[in-house]
Amino acid sequence: MTVHKQTKGTKALVAAMLAGTMAMAVPAIAADDQSHLEPVLNSTDRALTFDWPAIEIGTGEYEDGPTGVTVFRFKKKALVQVDARGGGPGTVNTDYVALGYDYPELDTIVFAGGSWYGLEATTAVATGLKDDGIRSGDAFSLEPNIAMSLGSIIFDFGSRRLNEIYPDKRLAQAAYRATRTGVFPLGARGAGRFAKSGGFFGCNAFSGQGGAFRQVGDLKIAAFVVANPYGVINDRDGKLAACYKAMGWPADVKVADLMQDFPESRKEGWAGGADKTASNKNTTISLVVVNQKLPVADLKRLAVQVHTSMGRAIQPFATQFDGDVLYAVSTGEIEGAPYSSPDLGVLASETMWDALLSSVPEQPVVVAPVAGAKPSADTLKTAAGTYRFSQFVDLEVTVKDGKLYGRAAGKRTVYGIGHEKPVELQAVNGTDFTVPGRYPFILHFTGGDNLVVNPGHWQQVGMRVTPQ
Amino acid sequence: MTVHKQTKGTKALVAAMLAGTMAMAVPAIAADDQSHLEPVLNSTDRALTFDWPAIEIGTGEYEDGPTGVTVFRFKKKALVQVDARGGGPGTVNTDYVALGYDYPELDTIVFAGGSWYGLEATTAVATGLKDDGIRSGDAFSLEPNIAMSLGSIIFDFGSRRLNEIYPDKRLAQAAYRATRTGVFPLGARGAGRFAKSGGFFGCNAFSGQGGAFRQVGDLKIAAFVVANPYGVINDRDGKLAACYKAMGWPADVKVADLMQDFPESRKEGWAGGADKTASNKNTTISLVVVNQKLPVADLKRLAVQVHTSMGRAIQPFATQFDGDVLYAVSTGEIEGAPYSSPDLGVLASETMWDALLSSVPEQPVVVAPVAGAKPSADTLKTAAGTYRFSQFVDLEVTVKDGKLYGRAAGKRTVYGIGHEKPVELQAVNGTDFTVPGRYPFILHFTGGDNLVVNPGHWQQVGMRVTPQ
Amino acid sequence: MTVHKQTKGTKALVAAMLAGTMAMAVPAIAADDQSHLEPVLNSTDRALTFDWPAIEIGTGEYEDGPTGVTVFRFKKKALVQVDARGGGPGTVNTDYVALGYDYPELDTIVFAGGSWYGLEATTAVATGLKDDGIRSGDAFSLEPNIAMSLGSIIFDFGSRRLNEIYPDKRLAQAAYRATRTGVFPLGARGAGRFAKSGGFFGCNAFSGQGGAFRQVGDLKIAAFVVANPYGVINDRDGKLAACYKAMGWPADVKVADLMQDFPESRKEGWAGGADKTASNKNTTISLVVVNQKLPVADLKRLAVQVHTSMGRAIQPFATQFDGDVLYAVSTGEIEGAPYSSPDLGVLASETMWDALLSSVPEQPVVVAPVAGAKPSADTLKTAAGTYRFSQFVDLEVTVKDGKLYGRAAGKRTVYGIGHEKPVELQAVNGTDFTVPGRYPFILHFTGGDNLVVNPGHWQQVGMRVTPQ
Amino acid sequence: MTVHKQTKGTKALVAAMLAGTMAMAVPAIAADDQSHLEPVLNSTDRALTFDWPAIEIGTGEYEDGPTGVTVFRFKKKALVQVDARGGGPGTVNTDYVALGYDYPELDTIVFAGGSWYGLEATTAVATGLKDDGIRSGDAFSLEPNIAMSLGSIIFDFGSRRLNEIYPDKRLAQAAYRATRTGVFPLGARGAGRFAKSGGFFGCNAFSGQGGAFRQVGDLKIAAFVVANPYGVINDRDGKLAACYKAMGWPADVKVADLMQDFPESRKEGWAGGADKTASNKNTTISLVVVNQKLPVADLKRLAVQVHTSMGRAIQPFATQFDGDVLYAVSTGEIEGAPYSSPDLGVLASETMWDALLSSVPEQPVVVAPVAGAKPSADTLKTAAGTYRFSQFVDLEVTVKDGKLYGRAAGKRTVYGIGHEKPVELQAVNGTDFTVPGRYPFILHFTGGDNLVVNPGHWQQVGMRVTPQ
Repeated sequence: MTVHKQTKGTKALVAAMLAGTMAMAVPAIAADDQSHLEPVLNSTDRALTFDWPAIEIGTGEYEDGPTGVTVFRFKKKALVQVDARGGGPGTVNTDYVALGYDYPELDTIVFAGGSWYGLEATTAVATGLKDDGIRSGDAFSLEPNIAMSLGSIIFDFGSRRLNEIYPDKRLAQAAYRATRTGVFPLGARGAGRFAKSGGFFGCNAFSGQGGAFRQVGDLKIAAFVVANPYGVINDRDGKLAACYKAMGWPADVKVADLMQDFPESRKEGWAGGADKTASNKNTTISLVVVNQKLPVADLKRLAVQVHTSMGRAIQPFATQFDGDVLYAVSTGEIEGAPYSSPDLGVLASETMWDALLSSVPEQPVVVAPVAGAKPSADTLKTAAGTYRFSQFVDLEVTVKDGKLYGRAAGKRTVYGIGHEKPVELQAVNGTDFTVPGRYPFILHFTGGDNLVVNPGHWQQVGMRVTPQ
Repeated sequence: MTVHKQTKGTKALVAAMLAGTMAMAVPAIAADDQSHLEPVLNSTDRALTFDWPAIEIGTGEYEDGPTGVTVFRFKKKALVQVDARGGGPGTVNTDYVALGYDYPELDTIVFAGGSWYGLEATTAVATGLKDDGIRSGDAFSLEPNIAMSLGSIIFDFGSRRLNEIYPDKRLAQAAYRATRTGVFPLGARGAGRFAKSGGFFGCNAFSGQGGAFRQVGDLKIAAFVVANPYGVINDRDGKLAACYKAMGWPADVKVADLMQDFPESRKEGWAGGADKTASNKNTTISLVVVNQKLPVADLKRLAVQVHTSMGRAIQPFATQFDGDVLYAVSTGEIEGAPYSSPDLGVLASETMWDALLSSVPEQPVVVAPVAGAKPSADTLKTAAGTYRFSQFVDLEVTVKDGKLYGRAAGKRTVYGIGHEKPVELQAVNGTDFTVPGRYPFILHFTGGDNLVVNPGHWQQVGMRVTPQ
Repeated sequence: MTVHKQTKGTKALVAAMLAGTMAMAVPAIAADDQSHLEPVLNSTDRALTFDWPAIEIGTGEYEDGPTGVTVFRFKKKALVQVDARGGGPGTVNTDYVALGYDYPELDTIVFAGGSWYGLEATTAVATGLKDDGIRSGDAFSLEPNIAMSLGSIIFDFGSRRLNEIYPDKRLAQAAYRATRTGVFPLGARGAGRFAKSGGFFGCNAFSGQGGAFRQVGDLKIAAFVVANPYGVINDRDGKLAACYKAMGWPADVKVADLMQDFPESRKEGWAGGADKTASNKNTTISLVVVNQKLPVADLKRLAVQVHTSMGRAIQPFATQFDGDVLYAVSTGEIEGAPYSSPDLGVLASETMWDALLSSVPEQPVVVAPVAGAKPSADTLKTAAGTYRFSQFVDLEVTVKDGKLYGRAAGKRTVYGIGHEKPVELQAVNGTDFTVPGRYPFILHFTGGDNLVVNPGHWQQVGMRVTPQ
Repeated sequence: MTVHKQTKGTKALVAAMLAGTMAMAVPAIAADDQSHLEPVLNSTDRALTFDWPAIEIGTGEYEDGPTGVTVFRFKKKALVQVDARGGGPGTVNTDYVALGYDYPELDTIVFAGGSWYGLEATTAVATGLKDDGIRSGDAFSLEPNIAMSLGSIIFDFGSRRLNEIYPDKRLAQAAYRATRTGVFPLGARGAGRFAKSGGFFGCNAFSGQGGAFRQVGDLKIAAFVVANPYGVINDRDGKLAACYKAMGWPADVKVADLMQDFPESRKEGWAGGADKTASNKNTTISLVVVNQKLPVADLKRLAVQVHTSMGRAIQPFATQFDGDVLYAVSTGEIEGAPYSSPDLGVLASETMWDALLSSVPEQPVVVAPVAGAKPSADTLKTAAGTYRFSQFVDLEVTVKDGKLYGRAAGKRTVYGIGHEKPVELQAVNGTDFTVPGRYPFILHFTGGDNLVVNPGHWQQVGMRVTPQ
């Protein structure tokens, strides 16, 4: 099993762990200080490429969360309107936007993980523009020179990961300075680095950020979304885009069935898992950009119509546990209103649905225990101990009769492993273990002082804090 | 061909016409005075029946529009929140509701046709409650005694019908006084008397009002809707609930195809018809009632979540040409929050989709000209003349070489017949004629001084205003 | 004492009473049927006259309330924005206005008494415009032809008067049809017919409607207000514009003293009176009109700035017991933005303060019992009996030892006279009596079957319902 | 003339300047990098002291702006509502607050200078609470553990000072960590470090932050305000609290006169000065705290009523050039609603007026040139050169015939000195000069490489950038 796509920082850290050379002190990752974290910029495996110089995009990620930020920059200030529709939004300066002035003022829109803490990313991009002398704050220019940076956040803490690292000023400013045209990374990137979807039905799928672009004649439309919804993402046939399905469900279950049969359809689900209190923090944040010049009221209408249309692709949508916010931006590059408001709305809504579908990353598979698999001697020898993932997460591993057991010893549970009594960790091979269930859950013992949970793109690394 | 389901008033009128005994003066129906119109109350052919004494419902209709009003009354004042989401809403007292006081004040919700003029129905029900001594305005009671009547309207003028009759104070008070429990008329009834749907894709289907009821344990949910959307109504499989389809469309066309292929999917459509200016006035108004007691913020959330979910069943939804408003009401009959906010929202959303589907009436068929059919001698003899449908609508019928021709002679067009030059009226049988096209369009000559357009539930009656 | 300024209807009624010729049946004024009430239009003793043809104004009053309505009409549709700021507003169609479309749609603004029942006046003016063929509802014109009538109401029930007559459709349509340019009646006229002010400090002054006009170069500004505030109206020196002062107050008490010394300054006050439950329903509704063309955001800003400035002239302002709403209208007659937003706001704010001060009518004086004054023989002979003022208000008058006593026998109290035990009515002269207190309170026995309370502009007429 | 109240950092810098020992390189203060700036915490000369442990307050200042931040912390989460009323507000997370949830979530309110850049202070305090482990972001606690930090900003750039230093993350976190109970520094402190007032009438007074506290029985009310309004601050007699008056004004001019006589009253004013473009950026941000437990709607009402009442003390108020926002907080320490909503509103409004008056610092006097005063020989010898105040502000000083002349050589003007042609700097004494005018304007030559403009609390220090 390879531990892929790590940042240099984490890679070095894990290398040190694997080598067993790291000191036994409480590791830095378990503290709240983020100064050692290394921004990873514009990391991409799958991307939307499109030709529209007016939009620049940059992403930044802290792999140790993982969590991240996505910055959209409009070098020429643009007109913006906002539709906040979820029950738990995070926003900046929307009171100003709601006043409806009809001149372009927007510089950047910043999406980030980290719940409300991630709003620091939005304000940091504004001050970054100032620090760089681009929006100097000088009140003597003819055009407004105070940066307008708007932004929203997703909740990517809770049961998703075992730490509370957030996208901070440093990461956001690095991402803003990495903005470039034409490329938007898709999947679990940027602000969508640790998004999930479908908790309402217990799907708990890995999610991410999506983008799509359409051009009809001179009209350009781009849609971007960070999809972290409580509802499930579904395609135009009603098929779930991603879901760890419950046992009783038909293979080709459709969202309409799940919805219509509710509450029957949720007999087994997320809500029944260990992380109950955290299951209900979600958000989908989105951005639609058009080059057609629009009056303020029409731009606001575009926001409303497109946001409402997203209720087709995410079900349920706009719940109390979502903080959904949509930003509509007009770059004003073409005049003369070639499209009426509803027509423009339909085109943008369909682009947004495409964007949503593009957000879904490949899902890690659920690995079952393998009959006959046995822990290696090395694992048995070194596994026992308490591993710290963050200040609230300790996993105590014990060995008894050649079997491994785990128990949450910190404040929080460790995914499916609770505090009550040790749970058997069932071997998949000599170094990897699982506790069987609906979701992927692998514990990989490195043979050194660390334990990697769910190795791969969303891995969590714990370090031994007890003397061996 | 029978002229069915008329009110006594219209029946008498038409009878008089058929008998040719009516004076040649400009008929009353062409004037703006509505005092001769006769309220038809609780007219029902199809109905939702349900057991929930807290909700009383009454409908009133003026068949000469036709247009109507639907009154929901909560004898015990209820808590209400509102979500206005369309681009052209009509509302009353929503500033007050938005203040979020947490005590029940709602008496009635009134839905009506007549565009903004139909708001008279809302205020009239309030004063009706006062006139009847139920909410006396007496400020000395312990409980609030000023009636709170909220309400919204649909646009049912324009190309839908040939007059501008609106639901007025008299009709609304009659409907309020006819409220009763347990029965909600479905289809083209009450406020949905002349609703249409699907103009965006040229569907131009007849629409109406729908209702649905669910009970899960002690929880009761009712959803009511007057569906007059610019978008198409579709079922959970994406099938159009009603549509006069364009020629090129596949028989089993799905809404997802129409939407995704837009603007290609609208090559032929409503927008190309004669009534262009009127094509884009729509609205869907809806009401969801729960018996669970809810905090104000949760009731508002219910409104938002359910309203957003309707974007699945109506596509597009919440456009600039819609005036969508949803009312969420809690009767507060059960306490203890058995359902979380998102769960309640899903249950109510599905109930609302059921309600929407129940709103669709049986569609009149498109009748083609019949080869060989000839006007009867009597028709030829008496058809010529100008028929007045209202102050703005005159149809001039001429006879030439045994054929009939029509031309709009008033300010407005007469459905597909414009002002430019006489259009041939092609015979279907001895008394009925059509101008072929996408939509039903029958002209029935009675042999007397009147002309019935589209005889049946949505018929328009014109009277000869020229001496024969 | 003369009973002046009555309407013909009331005059006839009172004449009949004085003649003692009226039957003993429960008089019509005590019922809820308003069909016998006679609209009095454009009644004026004091007026603002100004030259601005774009604004037409009409008032209608039912003297038997008294209550009334004021209609502002813009023959050429105007742009409007609304600021609802009080805790209990009544509004129509403000959701639409808030969408911020930048084309003029406003036809009329309607202010009325009657609490929420008075909103019927707003919708009735819209339908009046339709009935008259001015805004036909015809969707085929090039310009919008649906009337936009906005409006708000004041609470003028409660302890103010002894009945709940409200401005209804008939009165509002009559007032709309009486609109004319150049004249705005000042004082207790139109919607301000039975306004009061200053209840917060127990002032309980009679109030009304005010107007003012300024022209600076080409810029025209008009301000209109119906002042029924819980707070006191004060001039630019802080002097109370009108107040029945409490005993302990200095003669030249200033509003700043009352406010700063609160709650000490309210030792004796309205709240201590008999009509406690009704003391706290108020509202100030206002309208500012400019001829400068403004973007939507600037017009909204004008509404906000002016509304906020009114907190100087009314203290306290925008309380929970007020339903304050301000309408800002631009007729768009002059272009080129001669005044910046704040400058325009200041000019309009000062005009509004002038308007507020002009609203205050001459106050009836408090008449004390006159030592030695004795009821006339005729009064003693005929006074005893129960007088009905409305369905909730009966006053039982008894005679004992040459003195008169009063007791409230209906549901409501009769100003200062409660239900508990008979209160002595102390003679002022042979026919007039009072119960001494802070406020004017005269009972005038006509010698016939009626009793006039507070004869004059705000008089209430009761009729004997017991056989003599 | 002493240069008082400097921070250690600036003091050292100025000392170095005075000693003439500093290198000629472009000084650090002229760059945008803020990392060398030293936070000055809880700096106080005048203060409100009060006993209310629930509220903790800290201030931070960068003297080199000067600019600053004020943090209000509620250790026990409190309920909050917001009223944004100005034309240019800066806010964070108000969409969430507007949803009206009825449980306490507020941790901190942060006021800052720096226009929108100062919003970084608000988000930084949230992350500070996280970094310190107080609001860990851990989703597994029973109570919400995501910090809610709200905040607003004032515009203190523009013509106020010669640089664009803003309160950043570092300063805000330092101020948050310095919060303590019972003391609130008054005057030009914290977020009010470089506030001004009265620009509308050209007053251009120095302003600051104010606070007041009242206790009535068990009820506690505190009001805090950072007053940077476009309008003038006035006391309860209408006297201007601070103003550099225009020449023609009476000594005892009252605000009512200025307002009512507008535009005549603004014949000479700010708008005529050199810094025209910057004259119109203002804001007043305020906070009212009560210990009475309130429903959400009542807390929102408190915000509205108090905010409206501020229109008495600031005239004009809530203009397009103000970004006024008021926060209302209930600590919920006393239950049982001892005060009605309007009563509470009045008490809080008066407390707020007290707070506003307490905000006004002692004003620097206008120093006129002194006839016969001559530059010292040392000054003449060393004065010539270009002095840099920030990247946009250079002042070129030349000597001719024993007189000094100044000219703005950078992008911006230097207060009253423009770019056109050299202006004579008239001697006040041997080292100090002025350009006579309505406002204080002193140029103090230190004899070394620096030039101190307006020495004292609001001084600006320039450093020579040309070789001598």
